[in-house]
Amino acid sequence: MGKPTIRNVAVVGTGVIGRSWIQVFARARCRVAVYDADPAQLAQALEWFHADLDLLRAEGAIDKAEAKARRKRVTGAESLAGALADAGWVQESGPERLETKQAMYQELDRLAPPEAILGSSTSALDMTDIARGVPGAGRCIVAHPVNPPHVVPVVEVLGGAGTRPEVVDATIAFLRSIGQAPVLMKKFAPGFVLNRMQSALIREAVDLVRSGVADVEAVDLCIREGLGLRWALMGPFGVANTNADGGVAEYFTRYRPSYHALWDALRTDLRLDDALVAELARQTDAMLGPDREALRAWRDRLVMAIRDIKQALPAPGPRPGKSKRTGKGKAGGRKGGKTKKGRTR
Amino acid sequence: MGKPTIRNVAVVGTGVIGRSWIQVFARARCRVAVYDADPAQLAQALEWFHADLDLLRAEGAIDKAEAKARRKRVTGAESLAGALADAGWVQESGPERLETKQAMYQELDRLAPPEAILGSSTSALDMTDIARGVPGAGRCIVAHPVNPPHVVPVVEVLGGAGTRPEVVDATIAFLRSIGQAPVLMKKFAPGFVLNRMQSALIREAVDLVRSGVADVEAVDLCIREGLGLRWALMGPFGVANTNADGGVAEYFTRYRPSYHALWDALRTDLRLDDALVAELARQTDAMLGPDREALRAWRDRLVMAIRDIKQALPAPGPRPGKSKRTGKGKAGGRKGGKTKKGRTR
Repeated sequence: MGKPTIRNVAVVGTGVIGRSWIQVFARARCRVAVYDADPAQLAQALEWFHADLDLLRAEGAIDKAEAKARRKRVTGAESLAGALADAGWVQESGPERLETKQAMYQELDRLAPPEAILGSSTSALDMTDIARGVPGAGRCIVAHPVNPPHVVPVVEVLGGAGTRPEVVDATIAFLRSIGQAPVLMKKFAPGFVLNRMQSALIREAVDLVRSGVADVEAVDLCIREGLGLRWALMGPFGVANTNADGGVAEYFTRYRPSYHALWDALRTDLRLDDALVAELARQTDAMLGPDREALRAWRDRLVMAIRDIKQALPAPGPRPGKSKRTGKGKAGGRKGGKTKKGRTR
Repeated sequence: MGKPTIRNVAVVGTGVIGRSWIQVFARARCRVAVYDADPAQLAQALEWFHADLDLLRAEGAIDKAEAKARRKRVTGAESLAGALADAGWVQESGPERLETKQAMYQELDRLAPPEAILGSSTSALDMTDIARGVPGAGRCIVAHPVNPPHVVPVVEVLGGAGTRPEVVDATIAFLRSIGQAPVLMKKFAPGFVLNRMQSALIREAVDLVRSGVADVEAVDLCIREGLGLRWALMGPFGVANTNADGGVAEYFTRYRPSYHALWDALRTDLRLDDALVAELARQTDAMLGPDREALRAWRDRLVMAIRDIKQALPAPGPRPGKSKRTGKGKAGGRKGGKTKKGRTR
């Protein structure tokens, strides 16, 4: 990572997503002012941030000086106005209710410096709706991360009807400069891009268990020792491209009848009733055990290791830099930084 | 990997999948007799195997002695009878037509030693149909890999109506002993487990491009810098388990309304017409360039590196060994072997 294109950041709302953003910005050498309407939640988030730094130290991912530097960049703010005073970027991660968000954006727009961009972590709402009637609607934009953003780099970006094009460009540039992988949507769709694909896969995963074709462990194995190994490197089009000598054109022509038949065979009216949810939980708990904190720490560590591998051995071909907005530079490029072992955790 | 539970293997049919199986078995210290009805295809497959050994040597993944040893384990057979003479396991990877497979299984059953197991790489057919009327139907079983099996370890396993339970158990044990990750299906479904989930995701990926929500690069980025990073480690149930403090029960209860709404919003009558396929190919080629061989070599190398990381740092909790058939031991466990750097390529 080079320098962040925006130096002063406000993190507003500090649930699981909001607190993870603190680590993203602190790692990228931003100054981070953190605010939550609930002081206890704010305190918890800062505690998590410090504990995460300790964990990174213990793993050898960062050294003492880096931990200290990150700690110094982050301060809790006592008021929203205080958090926003110097902000050039606001990352809002509040509750997912339209009315709440609308009121919040009126406030943010009133209190933030006029040049600040107001980004939302919303996973479902349309900025056109959130920013309706907000005088500074032109600087409001969706910047939806994957959980947790300090580990998984993708951020879905989408302006509302009133968002200025230069705000979209500045958002892409900023997210890239802090080591995230911005993905520009061209228009709104429920669930955006990522959750639509995830939900399509999950529907079939659940239905395979429901219908008695496979148990939870078999389904998960097919992903983590099968499809997921390829998808950590290439999306579905990249995979199709390598699975036929003539690339995507040959792949989707040759397998067109198979896909049409298979698509028609997938059940689409699935509902998650209580008994089904209980059975999924029973099998998952038997497979993975009760210690979710340990599993999360393991996930975070290994995802970062996979990103390190990809950075050390980037894909051949013209991929980086092809499409101006979504592909330029290293996707989630993670160079340099004051870290051990070349990592940028 | 320890010793393979079956030492002598016949590879019958040497397209892209069949030739990759040669490397799986040779790596696992099986003796491998290779046959193809087309001698030119057979020669090509052996050539590929030798070239792949050279590549592994060049990458430092294996040393000279290991390459030589693997080469010595593999022989081309001039007749099907010759290939099958000593076989304890037959991996059939012929054309995907039911009549062809039925005729082939009559032949295999007639020529193979009585104790040999007859496994099929079929990705679509039901062993109940393939083995209908075959005297040795009890030893016939589907063992469907992911492309390419010497890199991606999952193998979907499913017997036909006549398959003996001890053949299913021996298949699971054998595949595990050679470093693959067998996944037992409980009954037949079109596309099995893995391709059903893949096709569900691909349908939505294609529809996102078709409907103008995102371009090919944005869709692929969402997977390779987003969902795929988690899925290389955990399946959808493992991911859900870590995304809510109360695990899968809480996750699917809290997000039930969101999933139901999203599922209803996904288009399910999608068809791949020529114009759509051409547009997908155009965007993918622009993203990835024309050199698919280089991309495949990169994919293989990085998938193996991800597997190395997972083996070095296994997931906490009781996952390995919970369910007798699908989870026992290291999933795709890849220990030891005469390799450099601890890899078992």
